[in-house]
Amino acid sequence: MNSNSVAMTDLSEMKHKLETVCIFGTGDFGRSLGLRLLQSGYGVVYGSRGLKNSLLLPKGSKIMSHAEAACEAHVIFVAVQREHYGFLSSLASDLGGKVLVDVSNNLKRGLYPESNAEYLSKLVPGATVVKAFNTISAWALQSGGLDANRQVLICGDSADAKQQVTNIAQSLSFTALDRGSLRAAAELEDLPLQLFPLWRLPLNIAICLTAFIFFYVLTRIVIYERVTNGKDIAFRIMISLANKAFPIVSLVMLSLCYLPGALAGFLQLYNGTKYRRFPDWLDRWMLCRKQLGLVALAFGFLHVLYTLVIPIRYYVRYRINVYTISLVKDNKTYEFDNTAAWRFDSYYSMGILGFGLFVLLGITSLPSVSNSLNWREFRFVQSKLGYLTLLLCTAHTFLYGWNRFLNPESYRWWMPPAYMLSLVVPCVVLILKLILITPCVDRKVTRIRQGWERQGKTSANGGDTKINQRLMA
Amino acid sequence: MNSNSVAMTDLSEMKHKLETVCIFGTGDFGRSLGLRLLQSGYGVVYGSRGLKNSLLLPKGSKIMSHAEAACEAHVIFVAVQREHYGFLSSLASDLGGKVLVDVSNNLKRGLYPESNAEYLSKLVPGATVVKAFNTISAWALQSGGLDANRQVLICGDSADAKQQVTNIAQSLSFTALDRGSLRAAAELEDLPLQLFPLWRLPLNIAICLTAFIFFYVLTRIVIYERVTNGKDIAFRIMISLANKAFPIVSLVMLSLCYLPGALAGFLQLYNGTKYRRFPDWLDRWMLCRKQLGLVALAFGFLHVLYTLVIPIRYYVRYRINVYTISLVKDNKTYEFDNTAAWRFDSYYSMGILGFGLFVLLGITSLPSVSNSLNWREFRFVQSKLGYLTLLLCTAHTFLYGWNRFLNPESYRWWMPPAYMLSLVVPCVVLILKLILITPCVDRKVTRIRQGWERQGKTSANGGDTKINQRLMA
Amino acid sequence: MNSNSVAMTDLSEMKHKLETVCIFGTGDFGRSLGLRLLQSGYGVVYGSRGLKNSLLLPKGSKIMSHAEAACEAHVIFVAVQREHYGFLSSLASDLGGKVLVDVSNNLKRGLYPESNAEYLSKLVPGATVVKAFNTISAWALQSGGLDANRQVLICGDSADAKQQVTNIAQSLSFTALDRGSLRAAAELEDLPLQLFPLWRLPLNIAICLTAFIFFYVLTRIVIYERVTNGKDIAFRIMISLANKAFPIVSLVMLSLCYLPGALAGFLQLYNGTKYRRFPDWLDRWMLCRKQLGLVALAFGFLHVLYTLVIPIRYYVRYRINVYTISLVKDNKTYEFDNTAAWRFDSYYSMGILGFGLFVLLGITSLPSVSNSLNWREFRFVQSKLGYLTLLLCTAHTFLYGWNRFLNPESYRWWMPPAYMLSLVVPCVVLILKLILITPCVDRKVTRIRQGWERQGKTSANGGDTKINQRLMA
Repeated sequence: MNSNSVAMTDLSEMKHKLETVCIFGTGDFGRSLGLRLLQSGYGVVYGSRGLKNSLLLPKGSKIMSHAEAACEAHVIFVAVQREHYGFLSSLASDLGGKVLVDVSNNLKRGLYPESNAEYLSKLVPGATVVKAFNTISAWALQSGGLDANRQVLICGDSADAKQQVTNIAQSLSFTALDRGSLRAAAELEDLPLQLFPLWRLPLNIAICLTAFIFFYVLTRIVIYERVTNGKDIAFRIMISLANKAFPIVSLVMLSLCYLPGALAGFLQLYNGTKYRRFPDWLDRWMLCRKQLGLVALAFGFLHVLYTLVIPIRYYVRYRINVYTISLVKDNKTYEFDNTAAWRFDSYYSMGILGFGLFVLLGITSLPSVSNSLNWREFRFVQSKLGYLTLLLCTAHTFLYGWNRFLNPESYRWWMPPAYMLSLVVPCVVLILKLILITPCVDRKVTRIRQGWERQGKTSANGGDTKINQRLMA
Repeated sequence: MNSNSVAMTDLSEMKHKLETVCIFGTGDFGRSLGLRLLQSGYGVVYGSRGLKNSLLLPKGSKIMSHAEAACEAHVIFVAVQREHYGFLSSLASDLGGKVLVDVSNNLKRGLYPESNAEYLSKLVPGATVVKAFNTISAWALQSGGLDANRQVLICGDSADAKQQVTNIAQSLSFTALDRGSLRAAAELEDLPLQLFPLWRLPLNIAICLTAFIFFYVLTRIVIYERVTNGKDIAFRIMISLANKAFPIVSLVMLSLCYLPGALAGFLQLYNGTKYRRFPDWLDRWMLCRKQLGLVALAFGFLHVLYTLVIPIRYYVRYRINVYTISLVKDNKTYEFDNTAAWRFDSYYSMGILGFGLFVLLGITSLPSVSNSLNWREFRFVQSKLGYLTLLLCTAHTFLYGWNRFLNPESYRWWMPPAYMLSLVVPCVVLILKLILITPCVDRKVTRIRQGWERQGKTSANGGDTKINQRLMA
Repeated sequence: MNSNSVAMTDLSEMKHKLETVCIFGTGDFGRSLGLRLLQSGYGVVYGSRGLKNSLLLPKGSKIMSHAEAACEAHVIFVAVQREHYGFLSSLASDLGGKVLVDVSNNLKRGLYPESNAEYLSKLVPGATVVKAFNTISAWALQSGGLDANRQVLICGDSADAKQQVTNIAQSLSFTALDRGSLRAAAELEDLPLQLFPLWRLPLNIAICLTAFIFFYVLTRIVIYERVTNGKDIAFRIMISLANKAFPIVSLVMLSLCYLPGALAGFLQLYNGTKYRRFPDWLDRWMLCRKQLGLVALAFGFLHVLYTLVIPIRYYVRYRINVYTISLVKDNKTYEFDNTAAWRFDSYYSMGILGFGLFVLLGITSLPSVSNSLNWREFRFVQSKLGYLTLLLCTAHTFLYGWNRFLNPESYRWWMPPAYMLSLVVPCVVLILKLILITPCVDRKVTRIRQGWERQGKTSANGGDTKINQRLMA
């Protein structure tokens, strides 16, 4: 799909020589782009106010005034900052009929009412403006496109102009993706300013949950001890309390990662079709499941480390020592409790196996690993192994509680131990999943996901081209 | 290599406008494909029985009856399930001379005697059938091809038709790979149904080995104790026995990962050439070495976690406590044994360094990391560092045994401790490698791998185009 | 940008059939290349001395004498070793006007005064030589280019010939990158012989530092004890001393990873411009920052493991036991020290959080992860989170020292404890960073990095097209 008109003019004039491209601006981006264009066989002319930076320009390029440079090429990259676009309106006659490629980004969001590309289009109405390359950094241009993001997003109102820019992007070994009309430029200009948009919700949930659990156990343990016995055990904040909050957050977030899938299954059952759009909150939730899971893994990792340092803690050594000495002094013996041995060992074993599987899930969510899986393998890992992980971690928490669930001493100030709270969400998810995999329900869901619709439901839907295939995981 | 006839017709009619493509079927895949085609500049017409789903179709596409749609385009994607192919035979006249692209997959293997594409070819003998895109999910089509598998596998009997589909795939930013004639379609249709084919053998070995070692140590420790002393120590199953089985499986599988390379070296020495094909079992074994190593790493990781929870186990605390109290009561002192200090510390140190290197090997086997290494670096890591890891882990096991090898008490019921069994394979591998790297043998192997052949061997070989270069690792 | 003359001749002769390519040499590389070319639609003829290996050649290719094969194609791949280039000079008349692609590599660096490609060019002056494909292994050619390095580096003196080779590389689904004239061939031939060039400096620093710290603590602890008290505590080498050296090396290398960025900021402030080139040593240092950080992470990982095995060490169990017994015998009680509890727990907590963040930094430096981040996200992770990691790890070390800094007993033989030495570099880095982020300095640096230059500085610079954008991280 490349090399249509470009190839034709080439062939008529000179073989194997690509057209000349003009770049306005001699900053980092302009220079890197020029170098890359030259390496790919294009001719490059720079348009510049002065010639002061000409020594820095890549060898083989020419530098001239803006007007002269504009005459040399059909495609002109505008690699100057939006604040300096003003001079372009005076060049309107030279730029008529040209393709102007706006590569600019802003320093902050919402600085201007309209996108840079649309502003450029208003300044030079005679030219065709295409927004492209703004998501590619000067560094990515230099490093050859393989160690860096390779996707060039393009938008503009002229299919012809977009095709020319696509050709150039592909010649530079980038992958070009058309994102529609110039109105999409605002969206493209937002992309490089984004800071982990999909991670916001999971991180906020994690922070709120950690804060809540932390203050809950602080009250239940440290403040309760202070009020009731007058003892100061605030030092336990650093490790004991942290190691109560982290595993709870991890378990809750892991189950939050599987809850929307189960809810969606029930919603599809209720709707009787997969073509009805999910409510917005569910859609947003489903999109950040991977991030929820990875945040849960991070908290689980901290829980493991906090647990493993337990035996080298000063406080723990002190307590064991005091206990041994008290046994000696009272001339008692340490009775071996076979049930306790089973309980603690099972508890640790579940935790280790759950964490091992969790790490495996984390590794398969690395882009390069998940790309090498086919759809069936991906579903197997993220769904089957994911639920197994959740099951093991829930069992680990139940074994931790053991028979304390019914022990009235556990309910200090009417507050149950924090681990009990943490079991609510995972149990709900496991029960929902259990219902969904019973043969009769499973058959119905599978049929719906293969496109079957309950009578009288078809006419109700519409306008939704979003694919719910990911739901199957 | 794209845009030959396509480009020519484009240029004669309208510049920068790509041809129109027809899609039969308005399901998830059909809609996603249509959207992507439109984004890449193609025209899209859908052929459908009814118009009921037309609201869900991407904007810019047209929908009409199958026969009308077929007339609009030269390339037709058949995105319906095999069971509904029947209607296509009635369209035979409209489909004559067209390129039909079969994108279908089956739900299970071996449902039908012939591949879907070959069945389609029989149904519409006048059309040219190409199998393609079946390994690409609707999700991958939507997400732009960069976050997902980018390889489109193509097969068919007409080079001309395959070229047209290749052009379309490349326009959609996919990488196209020709896999031969339409007979290969059955193989391509199997690909999305595969579930970790290369992991099967390593996982089966791991499961069998774990089961065997587990029952071995169960007999030697728990049952022996029960029978001999009448004591129930079954609680040790959860951690102690697991932590005997896991490191043994890990060590044996790590050495199984290096054994085939050593065997192949000896086989090449014996054959006197590298052009003789290896026996099938060795070939299959060599292909899953990476998986063997990664399974070994997973078991090693579990071993590390099981070892690190030892000091927080109830049983271990109990035993230490009892020992301390007994020392106090008997008025004895704990004599410091310098040799024991050396032995245990060396033992742990070897284990930690071995595990550290093992993790490093695991990281370099991630696709994105191994792709960034050149051949020499890859060989260095996987061969040199790999053998160093094996050496450290074997030394770790020997230090664990220490002087118990000759202790008759270790042989309960004539069964040696499990760790002794685990040393057999690694020792064999290390000895074989030692022989292979002695200067005189090494020189011969290197010469053979550079293409040298012993006299009288040349005529014996033949028909093997498989490359044994990977052997050098 | 592909398929210009190629496409034209195709169209005039036969549709969708690519040209014929000739390969001299029937070794592993020649055969794999031929197979891939055939799969991509090219015709392939082999030129060979004899026909002995013809059975191994891919199906569909032809084999003939060198002279005959040369006549069949315009582009000839020379896939023979440099030592056998001699025969090519006798073919000079057949090779006149052809494009010879040199794909060869040497076994060692510096074996020959000139590159293989330049030598070939001298041997056959009538042909145009292009160096290409030497960085691609036979294995990568076979496995389809997606699981392996996809970048084909090309150099040569004729733009026309390079374009033809580029077309072939792109048809084979590789990414082609022009690296200039044939003089660059020596550089390209060095690439496959490189062994982790960017890792050399960090690894050398790590080894020297480890050795120095190890002998330092050996003297301070083991030898001092021997000389002063006559006690042999050499067994502590295996774990105690290692666990003193590893964290120190880790912390120093982590700070060395951030030092050059801070130095560069001050240099830019001093120069008053970002267009002045950095001194060579700083440039080299900046290029291996990622490697410095990853080596630091590896040492930190070992430190974590060495710390976590502490409670299962024989020596530690002995000491705790002896202490408990001595308390019992002397009828003393273990006084609980609240400050010690705070101190140790904070110390472990800082270490765990620092290590957690460090692992996160390591994960984001995986190629596939860092590629999926935009520039702002990458900066946030590597700069903000990186400094937070450094801060936590430095705090961890300070808490380890606690009040021993002023304790004269710590200075044995006038040598301060090793951890004090390790704090020098991180403190310098943190102070420099603190200065750089004070509002007034920060404003100046930001302005300079956006292109602002102090008066009278402009004329001084020149000739540097290197981009210092990476500095901003």
